[in-house]
Amino acid sequence: MTNLYQFQTADHIISGADSLKNIGEYLHLLGEELKRTLIVTQPTMKRLGFVEQVKNDLAKHGIESDINIDVLPEPTLQNIEEVFESIKHQQYDVFIGLGGGSVLDAVKILSVLATNKQSLKDMLGTDLVEKPGIPTLLIPSTSGTGSEVTPNAIVTIPDEELKIGVVSKHLLPNLVFLDPILTLSLPRPITAATGMDAFTHSLESFISNKANLISDMVAMESIRLISASIVEAYQNGSSVVAREKMLLGSMYGGMALTSAGTAAVHALAYPLGGKFKIPHGVANSMLLPHVMKFNMDAIEERLSLVAQPMGIDTRELTEREAAEKVVEKIVEWTNLLEIPQNLKEYGVTEEDVSSLAVSASKVTRLLNNNPKELSLEDMETIYRKLLV
Amino acid sequence: MTNLYQFQTADHIISGADSLKNIGEYLHLLGEELKRTLIVTQPTMKRLGFVEQVKNDLAKHGIESDINIDVLPEPTLQNIEEVFESIKHQQYDVFIGLGGGSVLDAVKILSVLATNKQSLKDMLGTDLVEKPGIPTLLIPSTSGTGSEVTPNAIVTIPDEELKIGVVSKHLLPNLVFLDPILTLSLPRPITAATGMDAFTHSLESFISNKANLISDMVAMESIRLISASIVEAYQNGSSVVAREKMLLGSMYGGMALTSAGTAAVHALAYPLGGKFKIPHGVANSMLLPHVMKFNMDAIEERLSLVAQPMGIDTRELTEREAAEKVVEKIVEWTNLLEIPQNLKEYGVTEEDVSSLAVSASKVTRLLNNNPKELSLEDMETIYRKLLV
Repeated sequence: MTNLYQFQTADHIISGADSLKNIGEYLHLLGEELKRTLIVTQPTMKRLGFVEQVKNDLAKHGIESDINIDVLPEPTLQNIEEVFESIKHQQYDVFIGLGGGSVLDAVKILSVLATNKQSLKDMLGTDLVEKPGIPTLLIPSTSGTGSEVTPNAIVTIPDEELKIGVVSKHLLPNLVFLDPILTLSLPRPITAATGMDAFTHSLESFISNKANLISDMVAMESIRLISASIVEAYQNGSSVVAREKMLLGSMYGGMALTSAGTAAVHALAYPLGGKFKIPHGVANSMLLPHVMKFNMDAIEERLSLVAQPMGIDTRELTEREAAEKVVEKIVEWTNLLEIPQNLKEYGVTEEDVSSLAVSASKVTRLLNNNPKELSLEDMETIYRKLLV
Repeated sequence: MTNLYQFQTADHIISGADSLKNIGEYLHLLGEELKRTLIVTQPTMKRLGFVEQVKNDLAKHGIESDINIDVLPEPTLQNIEEVFESIKHQQYDVFIGLGGGSVLDAVKILSVLATNKQSLKDMLGTDLVEKPGIPTLLIPSTSGTGSEVTPNAIVTIPDEELKIGVVSKHLLPNLVFLDPILTLSLPRPITAATGMDAFTHSLESFISNKANLISDMVAMESIRLISASIVEAYQNGSSVVAREKMLLGSMYGGMALTSAGTAAVHALAYPLGGKFKIPHGVANSMLLPHVMKFNMDAIEERLSLVAQPMGIDTRELTEREAAEKVVEKIVEWTNLLEIPQNLKEYGVTEEDVSSLAVSASKVTRLLNNNPKELSLEDMETIYRKLLV
C-alpha cells in the first residue's frame, strides 16, 4: 500500500428514495442566482417521466430548462463535440446530467468545454483541463460507473479504436442525487452489466497497487453492498432496498477508483469497447474472473479479505481457498446475471487478439496499478479464454 | 434512520506519514497563481519546526508566507475578530491552518470573513455565510475535532457562557494534509482528550436520529480505527501506525458528524467549555458514558453493533449485554487515558448545575439529534454524576 493517497468526491451528495423530489431544497448549493439550466438526458428518462418531473420542480424555483438527448451511449469525441457545438451559444447556470454513465461523463465534459478555450482533444489525459466548469448536478439512473463522484470522463476515440479518459479535479461534480426510484425500471441486462461494472471498480481498487486506507474503506463497503444486492436487483428489479444498495455501492466504487485506480480488467476492456462496441460493463464483467485468476499469486491475501464481505463463510478456509472462493462467486454471479461469456458474440475472432492486446498494452495509466505485470502474451491468453 | 442524507467533505485529502513534505506537489489544487499565504498556527508548531518546514516548501514554489499565532485555544468571537482586524488589509491567496481544532476552525472563519461583508456575529448559525471564502489548506496537529473535513466552526461567546457554531458549505476546506508525523509529540493529556472527542463524534453520529447509510460507514470505520489505536497512541505516542489510525479515525468522525450530527453529549459539553473553560475533548469524554447510559433504552441495538468494531468479543452476548460492554469499554478507556472525572476540579459546584442545564437546553440543533429526549432535570442529573 502506498503511503500517500488522495480522497476526492462530489461536493454534495443527497441520497434516498424519492430524494430527487426534494431537488428544490438543495439548489442553493449550486449558486445563488440560477436562471437557466441544460438537462442532458436520454430517451428512457424522458419516457419514464423523470425529465418532466425535474423540469417542473426547477420551474417552481424560477429556473428554465432546456433538454438535450443527443449524447450517445459510450460517446465518441465527435459526438460530444457536436453536442457542445449545438449548445455553446446558450447561457446556462447549471448543467444537469440525468442518465447513465455516458450522460454523466458527457455533462462533466460539457461543463468544462463551456468555460475553457481548449478543445476536448486538448483535455484528453490527466490534469490538462485549465479552469473550473459550469456547476454540475448529476443524477445517475444506473448503478454502474460511479461517474457522479469521480473526476473522470471516458471518451471513445474511433480512429484509435480505444477509449481515453479526461481526468481533472475540474470534472468533480458539484451536486449529486442518488435516488433508487430512478433505477427501478432499468432493464435486466443493464442492471447486470452496470452492477458488475461497479463491482469491478471496487474489487480492482482494493487490489490496486495504489490501494490505501481510504480507498479500502469505500471499496469494502461497496463490495459489501453490491454483494448483498446484485442478484436481488437483477431478479427483482422493483426492490427499492436492493436498488438503493446498488446505487450506494456503485457510488462508493466511484470513490474507490478515484483514490486507488482500476487496473488490468479496465485496461483490457477499453479496446473491446473502442473497437467492438462491447458495453463497458459487459466487457469488464467478462474479463474480471480471468484477470483475477491471472493475478491470484500476487493478490491471494487481499482477495481473501474480500470473501467475508461477499457473504462467503470463511471460517474453515485457508487464505488461498478464500481467495479462490471469491473468484468462484464472481463466476456464479456472471452465470446468474446471464452476462455474455463469449467474445465471438460480438464479432471478435482469433485474428483480433494480437491487436487487442497491443491496444490494451497502451493503457499504462491503469496497467501500472495492476499488482502483477502483464506481457502482451499474458493479455492475449486472457482474451483467448473468452473466445470459446 | 432518515431517508434523505447528505455527504460533504473537504475537496482534496492527502494522507500518509510525511505527506506534508509533498505539499508543493498539490498546491495547484488551490489555484493557479498563488503568491502569498497566511499560515495561522500555534506556538508548539513553531517550536517543533513544522511552520518553518511549510514556509520553506512554499517559498520553493514562489509563495511568500506570513505567520500568525494569535488564535487562542477554543477562541472567543472577539479573539477571532481581533485576528481578522490585524490581517484584513493584506492580500492572501490561501489561508493555511496548521494546528489543533481551534486553529482550523479559526482559519475557516477568517477565510469567509475576508470575502464577505458580514460580521462574524451575523454568520453564527446555519447557512448564513453568503459567499465562498479564500481557499483554505488545513493541516491538523491533533486527532480530535475532524474540523479539517467539516463545514462547522465553533466560537465561544463569553457573554452567553456558551459555544455556538458557524455552519456553512462555504466553510468546507479545500485541501487537507493528514500527516501523523505532526501528532507524534502531542502531549499525553491532549492525545487522550482529543482522541476521546473524535470517538464521541463517531459514536454520537452512529446513534444520532440523523444516522444514515453514509454516516454509518464513516462512523463505523472511525470507531474501528480509534478503538484499535487510542490506548496505544496514549501510551506510546511515537507510534506512527497508532497516530495515523487516530488521525484517520478523527477525520472519519468529522465526516460522520457532518452528515449525522452529534447529540446530547456535545450539547451538554458546550456550557462546560463556555463557562468553565473545560477543554472540549475532556468535557465530551466525561459526559460520554453517562449520556450513553441515559440513552441506553433507546439505543440498545445500535450500541450493540458497535461492540465488535471496538474489539469486544460479542459471540456469547445478548444485544443488551453487548451494548453495556460498549459503555464499560468507554469507562475503561477513560481510566486508562487518565481523563479527569470530576467537574469540581474545574470549579463547578452544585449551584451551577441548574444554569448549566438551562444553557445546554438551548443547544437544540444537537439535542434534536439525540435518540431520547432530555428534560432539564435529566440534564441536571447527568451533570450531578460528575460532581462527586
